[in-house]
Amino acid sequence: MGEAQAMRTETDSMGAVEVPADRYWGAQTERSRQNFPIGGERMPPALIHAFGLQKKAAALANMALGQLDHRIGEAIVAAAEEVIEGKLDAHFPLVVWQTGSGTQTNMNLNEVIANRAIEMLGGIIGTKQPVHPNDHVNRGQSSNDSFPTAMHIAAVREMTGRLLPALNHLHGVLVAKAEAFAPIIKIGRTHLQDAVPLSLGQEFGGYAAQVTNDMMRIEATLPRLWQLAQGATAVGTGLNAHPDFARTFAVEVTRLTSQPFVPATNPFEALAANDAIVEASGALNVVAASLFKIANDIRLAGSGPRSGLGELHLPENEPGSSIMPGKVNPTQCEALTQVCVQVFGNHTTITMAGASGHFELNVFKPVMIAALLQSIRLLADATRSFTDRCVEGITANEGRIAQLMQQSLMLVTALNPHIGYDNAAKIAKKAYAEGTTLQKAGVALGLLTAEDFARWVRPETMLAPG
Amino acid sequence: MGEAQAMRTETDSMGAVEVPADRYWGAQTERSRQNFPIGGERMPPALIHAFGLQKKAAALANMALGQLDHRIGEAIVAAAEEVIEGKLDAHFPLVVWQTGSGTQTNMNLNEVIANRAIEMLGGIIGTKQPVHPNDHVNRGQSSNDSFPTAMHIAAVREMTGRLLPALNHLHGVLVAKAEAFAPIIKIGRTHLQDAVPLSLGQEFGGYAAQVTNDMMRIEATLPRLWQLAQGATAVGTGLNAHPDFARTFAVEVTRLTSQPFVPATNPFEALAANDAIVEASGALNVVAASLFKIANDIRLAGSGPRSGLGELHLPENEPGSSIMPGKVNPTQCEALTQVCVQVFGNHTTITMAGASGHFELNVFKPVMIAALLQSIRLLADATRSFTDRCVEGITANEGRIAQLMQQSLMLVTALNPHIGYDNAAKIAKKAYAEGTTLQKAGVALGLLTAEDFARWVRPETMLAPG
Amino acid sequence: MGEAQAMRTETDSMGAVEVPADRYWGAQTERSRQNFPIGGERMPPALIHAFGLQKKAAALANMALGQLDHRIGEAIVAAAEEVIEGKLDAHFPLVVWQTGSGTQTNMNLNEVIANRAIEMLGGIIGTKQPVHPNDHVNRGQSSNDSFPTAMHIAAVREMTGRLLPALNHLHGVLVAKAEAFAPIIKIGRTHLQDAVPLSLGQEFGGYAAQVTNDMMRIEATLPRLWQLAQGATAVGTGLNAHPDFARTFAVEVTRLTSQPFVPATNPFEALAANDAIVEASGALNVVAASLFKIANDIRLAGSGPRSGLGELHLPENEPGSSIMPGKVNPTQCEALTQVCVQVFGNHTTITMAGASGHFELNVFKPVMIAALLQSIRLLADATRSFTDRCVEGITANEGRIAQLMQQSLMLVTALNPHIGYDNAAKIAKKAYAEGTTLQKAGVALGLLTAEDFARWVRPETMLAPG
Amino acid sequence: MGEAQAMRTETDSMGAVEVPADRYWGAQTERSRQNFPIGGERMPPALIHAFGLQKKAAALANMALGQLDHRIGEAIVAAAEEVIEGKLDAHFPLVVWQTGSGTQTNMNLNEVIANRAIEMLGGIIGTKQPVHPNDHVNRGQSSNDSFPTAMHIAAVREMTGRLLPALNHLHGVLVAKAEAFAPIIKIGRTHLQDAVPLSLGQEFGGYAAQVTNDMMRIEATLPRLWQLAQGATAVGTGLNAHPDFARTFAVEVTRLTSQPFVPATNPFEALAANDAIVEASGALNVVAASLFKIANDIRLAGSGPRSGLGELHLPENEPGSSIMPGKVNPTQCEALTQVCVQVFGNHTTITMAGASGHFELNVFKPVMIAALLQSIRLLADATRSFTDRCVEGITANEGRIAQLMQQSLMLVTALNPHIGYDNAAKIAKKAYAEGTTLQKAGVALGLLTAEDFARWVRPETMLAPG
Repeated sequence: MGEAQAMRTETDSMGAVEVPADRYWGAQTERSRQNFPIGGERMPPALIHAFGLQKKAAALANMALGQLDHRIGEAIVAAAEEVIEGKLDAHFPLVVWQTGSGTQTNMNLNEVIANRAIEMLGGIIGTKQPVHPNDHVNRGQSSNDSFPTAMHIAAVREMTGRLLPALNHLHGVLVAKAEAFAPIIKIGRTHLQDAVPLSLGQEFGGYAAQVTNDMMRIEATLPRLWQLAQGATAVGTGLNAHPDFARTFAVEVTRLTSQPFVPATNPFEALAANDAIVEASGALNVVAASLFKIANDIRLAGSGPRSGLGELHLPENEPGSSIMPGKVNPTQCEALTQVCVQVFGNHTTITMAGASGHFELNVFKPVMIAALLQSIRLLADATRSFTDRCVEGITANEGRIAQLMQQSLMLVTALNPHIGYDNAAKIAKKAYAEGTTLQKAGVALGLLTAEDFARWVRPETMLAPG
Repeated sequence: MGEAQAMRTETDSMGAVEVPADRYWGAQTERSRQNFPIGGERMPPALIHAFGLQKKAAALANMALGQLDHRIGEAIVAAAEEVIEGKLDAHFPLVVWQTGSGTQTNMNLNEVIANRAIEMLGGIIGTKQPVHPNDHVNRGQSSNDSFPTAMHIAAVREMTGRLLPALNHLHGVLVAKAEAFAPIIKIGRTHLQDAVPLSLGQEFGGYAAQVTNDMMRIEATLPRLWQLAQGATAVGTGLNAHPDFARTFAVEVTRLTSQPFVPATNPFEALAANDAIVEASGALNVVAASLFKIANDIRLAGSGPRSGLGELHLPENEPGSSIMPGKVNPTQCEALTQVCVQVFGNHTTITMAGASGHFELNVFKPVMIAALLQSIRLLADATRSFTDRCVEGITANEGRIAQLMQQSLMLVTALNPHIGYDNAAKIAKKAYAEGTTLQKAGVALGLLTAEDFARWVRPETMLAPG
Repeated sequence: MGEAQAMRTETDSMGAVEVPADRYWGAQTERSRQNFPIGGERMPPALIHAFGLQKKAAALANMALGQLDHRIGEAIVAAAEEVIEGKLDAHFPLVVWQTGSGTQTNMNLNEVIANRAIEMLGGIIGTKQPVHPNDHVNRGQSSNDSFPTAMHIAAVREMTGRLLPALNHLHGVLVAKAEAFAPIIKIGRTHLQDAVPLSLGQEFGGYAAQVTNDMMRIEATLPRLWQLAQGATAVGTGLNAHPDFARTFAVEVTRLTSQPFVPATNPFEALAANDAIVEASGALNVVAASLFKIANDIRLAGSGPRSGLGELHLPENEPGSSIMPGKVNPTQCEALTQVCVQVFGNHTTITMAGASGHFELNVFKPVMIAALLQSIRLLADATRSFTDRCVEGITANEGRIAQLMQQSLMLVTALNPHIGYDNAAKIAKKAYAEGTTLQKAGVALGLLTAEDFARWVRPETMLAPG
Repeated sequence: MGEAQAMRTETDSMGAVEVPADRYWGAQTERSRQNFPIGGERMPPALIHAFGLQKKAAALANMALGQLDHRIGEAIVAAAEEVIEGKLDAHFPLVVWQTGSGTQTNMNLNEVIANRAIEMLGGIIGTKQPVHPNDHVNRGQSSNDSFPTAMHIAAVREMTGRLLPALNHLHGVLVAKAEAFAPIIKIGRTHLQDAVPLSLGQEFGGYAAQVTNDMMRIEATLPRLWQLAQGATAVGTGLNAHPDFARTFAVEVTRLTSQPFVPATNPFEALAANDAIVEASGALNVVAASLFKIANDIRLAGSGPRSGLGELHLPENEPGSSIMPGKVNPTQCEALTQVCVQVFGNHTTITMAGASGHFELNVFKPVMIAALLQSIRLLADATRSFTDRCVEGITANEGRIAQLMQQSLMLVTALNPHIGYDNAAKIAKKAYAEGTTLQKAGVALGLLTAEDFARWVRPETMLAPG
């Protein structure tokens, strides 16, 4: 706006294009930028960074196999490292809603790395000398194998580096709460109705177990994500790739990430389908289902302060109401459950996209990886925020818990061995009908004494088999 | 980074908070910013602008009802207009993943408008003098009615102002193509198998009819979206609102938007459920199903250039391949179908969110409106891009179309009235078995002459009943 | 099993097939039965009956247009009426998982009606004399237009004849409850937290409003469902159909159903897409979202009997527990919410199916109509059961409701106009901190008298604006 | 109808109920039958049979632990075996849409087995002597742990006994096709556009690899399904269960099924959540995505016979058209893809159900297991039918494949090493512009001879790296 932006000319096989002078991208990136004025959701940084890693590993593999001059290769590696570190994020303007192979983002990588490498080597940006985006940066590669390779690298890095630690953090806090709450006996609820007691620690232990299983579920999807398409080139045959490229490349990626990546067992499958992404999203879908349940339980248990269940106090992070002390809205639960429904929706998106490939290429790759990385990021961030700002600070409203538990008619179950089922039922029915306690009803019926009741009805003995 | 950012102190009922000095937001916004470090997806500008409109209409209604001093009211209106115009977008930093009532975004509006109005009136930002975010900007309102009101205003504006025009544009181009292609007779395909002929114009006319119906579907959802929650305040009773506020407010919004907004028939429903949003998303879901089919057909018909169906030429927008002239990747179809699967997923998100309310409030409002507005925006943008960069430039490969049609064995159907079903079948079977034409097979069997065939088998007579 | 089943020979263009002697179906039905041993879910009776109606209307139209001998036509009509009435259900063995055009079910209709008509006319079943399944029963029709026609007829009949009455029944009972509960003032809950009061009648009125809107949503989809594909024949051109067939047929269907069916505006769209089914499913999806919320609220409000919210008594239909009097599991809520999630899933199924058509025919028709009719049936049945066995018998636990409402600190809001916001807040804070009542706290602080409190804090004045 | 059905009186804690005299079920089953007149979808037989196995294992464990008289226990075992074998299917009339804990189906098992055992022991049905449905058949159990136990047993049996063998069968046939088709070189297609060649065997090998991965995905979910809730009783504490019951029971189930079942690591999680079912459904969802792609490719490759791609001949199972020889509708592909969209929908159902539990019990268990078992059954059946009636009989249309491959301009890629990129591009451009062959264009340009072309352009060398 105002004064004209400085521009530079870049070229591709269709001719010359003007690009902003202060950006490293080239002609093909610019064409995509102009041809897809849709939405505005950019390719996620986590994908761009993983793609930088893919370009670095490719250059290293090409040098190792004698396919790339070392001076050029080292410059590519150096430029790719800046991509990996996020220093060049502003040079990746393309949106998700582009060609379904992700070719344009692959070219964005090639162009930015080539121009930055040229700059490092003292050349003139845009000349493709001495570093060519296709011949050098993309050497031995096709968008069709590079893009799904970057998808898998990004997914593994985000799942192992972001989501699993966040879940593990939640798990640790839930376990600590389970231990701290072990002595607190509370009423159980099935069908949302009063049931026999358990300890508050057991309830939180159940949540922790959900998270443990979820971590195992995520890990169970990694073997398919560790398989990389690289080396398959355009249709899976590996045409024009060095015979050792796939293997050497995977070794480099493994070295750079400490994750055991390998060449795809079947390179045709690796381009034509993105089933591993659908599978990974399925694991996230279970994580979301678990967290939805946990967050929902916690806000129900924390409902009140006076006229809800009121068993838990949740930390107060913001003013709930200017006039209502004690009104603590369970906002972290609300943020987390909103994230969960987004993850459920992303899973529908990914499933339909994954099913809709044709022949040698699935062309829904950008939307699939964008949705997957969003799900991972949101689950990780929301889990961490929920853990730190909600679960960590939960305290038990012990008076209320004891009151709700002790007034429960379900405790009558403990009398069965002593006075028989029929008599126990009589007591319960009388207590319910008259709104009195089990003890009073029992004494009134002459079926037990107050001392019997105190000796026989002890919730703390009802927390385990036998 | 580097030098410390200048800060200013703002306060709320929990105390003082430091906020960036160059931002209009206040304490409650800042708390939300710090308490929800999740993802990074901000509340969509279309919602913020609609919310500005809600604040303007509320101020006008309050002035009309004698509830607001005119000097203050006019300043609020002026500040709200800047919000509506997008001039203050940088002052709305909150993410979607916040409290489920959207209270924090409502406070963001109240705080920004109050501070900007204070500034306009020569006051000191942060003092809440002479314009108070709650007492003046939020007067007669609650987040619980204001947020869903802004949701409906945003949805109606985006559907009528962005999506319907885009669909109408696509419809116009499809109708023009249908007319231009009317004389081109092509093979029909059912089950993806050769079938009796139709005109290419009829095929495009079918696409146009899908879009016509989709526009009617969107319009059919508006009556529920025109209902506004405003005036319901905290739980639907309208406690603390002026008895005429709901009506006066709706009149103002109608005046400002030229859309016939009315107070919700039932204010309790309007807070507790967001069914109208689920319904609107359902209409978008059909639009996406239609567009998915149309885009898929077009890329199939344009497949080739040599070894696909090759009936259509699609415009070439980017280099398909550096060596393969004629390789035109159907990238606009790919962008559009990716958008469609995102819309399908968003619909799952919105459905699950809409079903999960409790008692007097559904607390999934932010994710619902964010997903809905994303679906609208993406469908509108992608439809427009697809129309202008793909459909508009489609040409028929007439030679190929004629060849595919004429070699089809299904034309034999036209012989039934002349030589009988059994003889016609004999001709078709012979032609198929010997890989020859129907005409040659018929002549060889002595069932007709070449002249008979030319007279009887005329695809142009097969395009209508009778 | 045991002794051999008696068989009869039927033929089609591929040759002879043995069919059970006591069944009316013919060769093509039998081939489908053998070729698709999948699942076991039969085509829903509602579709078969609607298809009978389609065959009857086609015969009447053909007779009216002079296309069908009256003796044959009348026999077809009589046989079709038996199909419509469900008398021949045992003769429709085909499963949903067959050809995607539904051709095999269309042939099932043609074969059964032809054989039954032959029987009525004294002919020999299987001879196709004097009534031929293709030449007479299917006259002027193709599976490609007949099947979607039957889909629309079935959908309209089930929506208007089954679902709308069930929703209307629920609506009536909700309205009656809203009136009966109007005087009962209860605590409101937002974010599941205590909020200002409303009446229990207002809460039920909100539910009723959801149902009202849902009925309007369903009705809003009918205009597209009233459009019939009949007359389009194989690809939409109407080849081989009488020019007046589409119109005459629609008039007959309108007469038979009292629903305003018309020929499809665009016959190509009517075969190639099934968008109207996707749209109708979208309306059911909103109904399910509404009912999910209502049923969930009711079981939450009925939770207890002692340690839940306990505001409502739900009728006890089955033993909840052999020992626990008063344990009423909200089983009707559970059945209904399970139905709702099935409807959500069916909507995903229908959406993906609707999006996946190719060129002149969508070949997901059987699964689409089966899922739609299941959704309608389940929603209707579950709504009726929920209404009669749960909602109808709900009573308010007035003592509990009054207690929860009166202990709420949110009532302090009513003091603002009398003693000011700051003093009101002091009272609330003291009451919360000390676990006492607002009245006692107020008196202790010397801010009001017990009489003041009784005069000023009257929840019955908080139920409306002003 | 007609004469009155003979009835018998059964009783439960609510009193007496009349049941059909020829059925083994009792009062609680009958109440459910009357209280849930919804839909008509019965609990799937696979669940009932697995539940029989659960009752057998429970009786064996109870006998081993001295909790059950051997004469009674053996009768229970014998009756349960009849359930397992499907002999009593007619005695399980309950629908899916019942109480969300599945209690009524658990009671259906208890009642039928008790009455059948009474009959075996010479007692009088309905007397609960000498075998009591609760005290003996349900001994040490609760519906809350028994039902999820039966869910897991059913899921594991169906996945390992039905689905994995079906996938393995498909995999074997795909591998055989991949080997048979290895020598057939065809054009590759990316973006549905002509690309470099691969072999038809490589294409089918890609499909086989998808299926291999899918089998691994299913197996990866088993560890969580092998965990059984049994022993947790009502809320997870195991109240009233023998301390060794969970372990002994799991050993029995392992012995009976040859699957390594174990007690759930955390019994609270096992009742409150059904995450393992959501996870299993996620694996089925990927299977469906894979099969959708494979079936879609095959019908596209088989499109024609004259005017489609026509690379494959699919077996003709039914008359495609009475007049059109060679019109083979890909009906097995259509049935399979319809099954896939049902599985996608069921996954949405299961996800939403799995997320919606409250506190100690998820009450969406019936719909979850019904949807899961339907998905398994449909995928297994449709995969087997598709394999046997479609894939097995596929033949390559070698002439057509060779023609499409050889006319492709993408073969020009092979000239690069010999005449340089620029000259190769000239040839391709000329050939495209003039509609001629690469060879003729090259010779006309004087860039190579016909012999050069034959020597250099050999697609068989383009199928592997290097």
